[in-house]
Amino acid sequence: MRGVSVAGIGSTTFGKHGEKAIEVLAVEAAASAIADSGVDDREIGALYLGNFISGVLTGQEVLAGIVGDNLGLANIPCTKVEGACASGGIAFRHAALAIATGQCDAALVVGVEKMTHAPTPDVTAALNCAMDNRADGVSGLTFPGLFGIAWRVHAQRYGTTRDQVSAVVMKNKKNGLRNPLAQMGANLTRELIAASPFICDPLQLYDCCPASDGAAALLLVATDRAPRRKGPRIDVAASVQTRGAARIAGHPDLCSFDATVEAGKRAYEQAGLTAKDIDFVELHDCFSIAEVIDSEDLGIAPRGKGAVWAAEGRTAVGGEIPINASGGLLAKGHPVGATGVGQLYEAALQLRGEHPNQVKDAAIGLTHNLGGTGVACTVNILRRSDA
Amino acid sequence: MRGVSVAGIGSTTFGKHGEKAIEVLAVEAAASAIADSGVDDREIGALYLGNFISGVLTGQEVLAGIVGDNLGLANIPCTKVEGACASGGIAFRHAALAIATGQCDAALVVGVEKMTHAPTPDVTAALNCAMDNRADGVSGLTFPGLFGIAWRVHAQRYGTTRDQVSAVVMKNKKNGLRNPLAQMGANLTRELIAASPFICDPLQLYDCCPASDGAAALLLVATDRAPRRKGPRIDVAASVQTRGAARIAGHPDLCSFDATVEAGKRAYEQAGLTAKDIDFVELHDCFSIAEVIDSEDLGIAPRGKGAVWAAEGRTAVGGEIPINASGGLLAKGHPVGATGVGQLYEAALQLRGEHPNQVKDAAIGLTHNLGGTGVACTVNILRRSDA
Repeated sequence: MRGVSVAGIGSTTFGKHGEKAIEVLAVEAAASAIADSGVDDREIGALYLGNFISGVLTGQEVLAGIVGDNLGLANIPCTKVEGACASGGIAFRHAALAIATGQCDAALVVGVEKMTHAPTPDVTAALNCAMDNRADGVSGLTFPGLFGIAWRVHAQRYGTTRDQVSAVVMKNKKNGLRNPLAQMGANLTRELIAASPFICDPLQLYDCCPASDGAAALLLVATDRAPRRKGPRIDVAASVQTRGAARIAGHPDLCSFDATVEAGKRAYEQAGLTAKDIDFVELHDCFSIAEVIDSEDLGIAPRGKGAVWAAEGRTAVGGEIPINASGGLLAKGHPVGATGVGQLYEAALQLRGEHPNQVKDAAIGLTHNLGGTGVACTVNILRRSDA
Repeated sequence: MRGVSVAGIGSTTFGKHGEKAIEVLAVEAAASAIADSGVDDREIGALYLGNFISGVLTGQEVLAGIVGDNLGLANIPCTKVEGACASGGIAFRHAALAIATGQCDAALVVGVEKMTHAPTPDVTAALNCAMDNRADGVSGLTFPGLFGIAWRVHAQRYGTTRDQVSAVVMKNKKNGLRNPLAQMGANLTRELIAASPFICDPLQLYDCCPASDGAAALLLVATDRAPRRKGPRIDVAASVQTRGAARIAGHPDLCSFDATVEAGKRAYEQAGLTAKDIDFVELHDCFSIAEVIDSEDLGIAPRGKGAVWAAEGRTAVGGEIPINASGGLLAKGHPVGATGVGQLYEAALQLRGEHPNQVKDAAIGLTHNLGGTGVACTVNILRRSDA
């Protein structure tokens, strides 16, 4: 398999983009990644687009072909992939695979979603398309419900407190304040968080990521064809996609996602690394408690200690293993299909040393993207060529 | 690249499946393909699922993971791909690529759609998600409208008549009568067709494929790992995916699809064949005139002669180049995401010599799957190992 490197990155802001069409957001991010790469767009041999729910929310499908055409790319395979909230990470893996297996020398990956134009009940209903609806949806369960249950189990088993989980929220919201792409950065206190309305007990308002519009893109190239630029190259050290149980009753543990555990294991093995080698993590904090669980599932924090580690400042920028320096889904926003690609954009920015919340000496970064009730997961590891 | 072979095939009937959930249809077809293959399902290393519009019509996404879980497959990457009506062909190409590039030794491809439960206006609106809606949808154009225009151009340029196009309808409907999987086989006459209601002038009722429920699946394996069975092996000789103009104004010709022309050329080149080497074709006759145009775009019939060839019986079973012996989309039905996989099911059945409309000495078959207004296309060629 050939080495794959990140040649260019691009992103819109995450937030509200009003009347702007979904394909326009995607084209903006993609054009910006191509320009950033310095690669001639005639060299691009494949386009993978991650999107979850544009059919339901905007009445537009075949987005991959539309985006490829609007970019003026050649007649190349343009493919939309979908795996709920993991759609972006899956798109990245397929673009990386297209190069690694010699299909082409350059591949474009785009993630995009448009949600804020739709009324909240429509967004909630659309998001529930990510559930196994015959098994779980019929019960009235929503995603806040699922993560509320996970929190209860975590609290009961490990003694996790409201204040410890609030540390995750405060950290990510604060990180978001310094990220110009972020939708909802904020300076919050434990008191403000504890006083906010309940969404689904024990989840309160600030525990939940917002609905967002946005797009992100990366231009990947074969390492042996990577354009020269100052500073070290950014290489793809691992790209893994797994499947978990579709229905909640199939989960072996209600406060762990086996798709994440397995994806993490395989990614460390593929990269020849352990969790201790990772310098920073962008993970799937669709809810505050999700960050706690994800950090444990990835072996970043000890089992049961995810929230304690946040409360102790270990996962802050400047801590021993910064998590979601971008602000994460909680503060940066969660335009579903764009999220996984946006995480890789943030990771690449860190490895370039150009991040607004720069992690000192960042050389190896991991991104984690989880779909549905844990039915789909990707873990990707980017690594500086001098690391 | 490793050789890829078809080890097993499975399909539901195409038609109305009432209250049966979409993932149940997919599981039925997939389980049947696995059983048919004799391959241990623990060897399956990837699942690709083609689906177009289940989010909009059934409120269910992440179908690839759900189907993988319901089949009891191991923790493997399960990916939904979407390219409108070409979703099934795209899924097949990705499963074939996963094996060809050494990702795994066996891969499952499933195509599925569920449409007949929804009211007709909802289905029409859902299908229009396959259009570039800012460019074309706003004009009020629908797919019958697009193919009506194509017919007018074809008639004006080549003198194509109603009766010549009716020959396509009569042939496919008659073929459908003998296919137990087909939804709408019929014995029709020129008079019945010409007297049927207009859908979008010049398209009349029998010129249009029905909305359908259904699923089809193939189990692909590395050729060097193919289980022995009596008779020749079925190999993948070519698998090509292209992109055409997203918006109709971008089409260089209103009665040709450049995505098809290019996909055909590349597929013949990949297989080391010419159009003359093909023994039979399953192509994308979403409308009668589409078969006419597709057969010309693929170099099967001379330009402008697609309808004449049908009228002369050259494309009938027993003719020089049988087209849509299955009944095609017109008679077999068009469960969108399943269609491309269903075509490959039919082609494999022909190469086994087990087709209800068996083409004599069938050794090389081509399938053609077109998405949207021609924005996505796949051409796949299957070949008997003794050919």
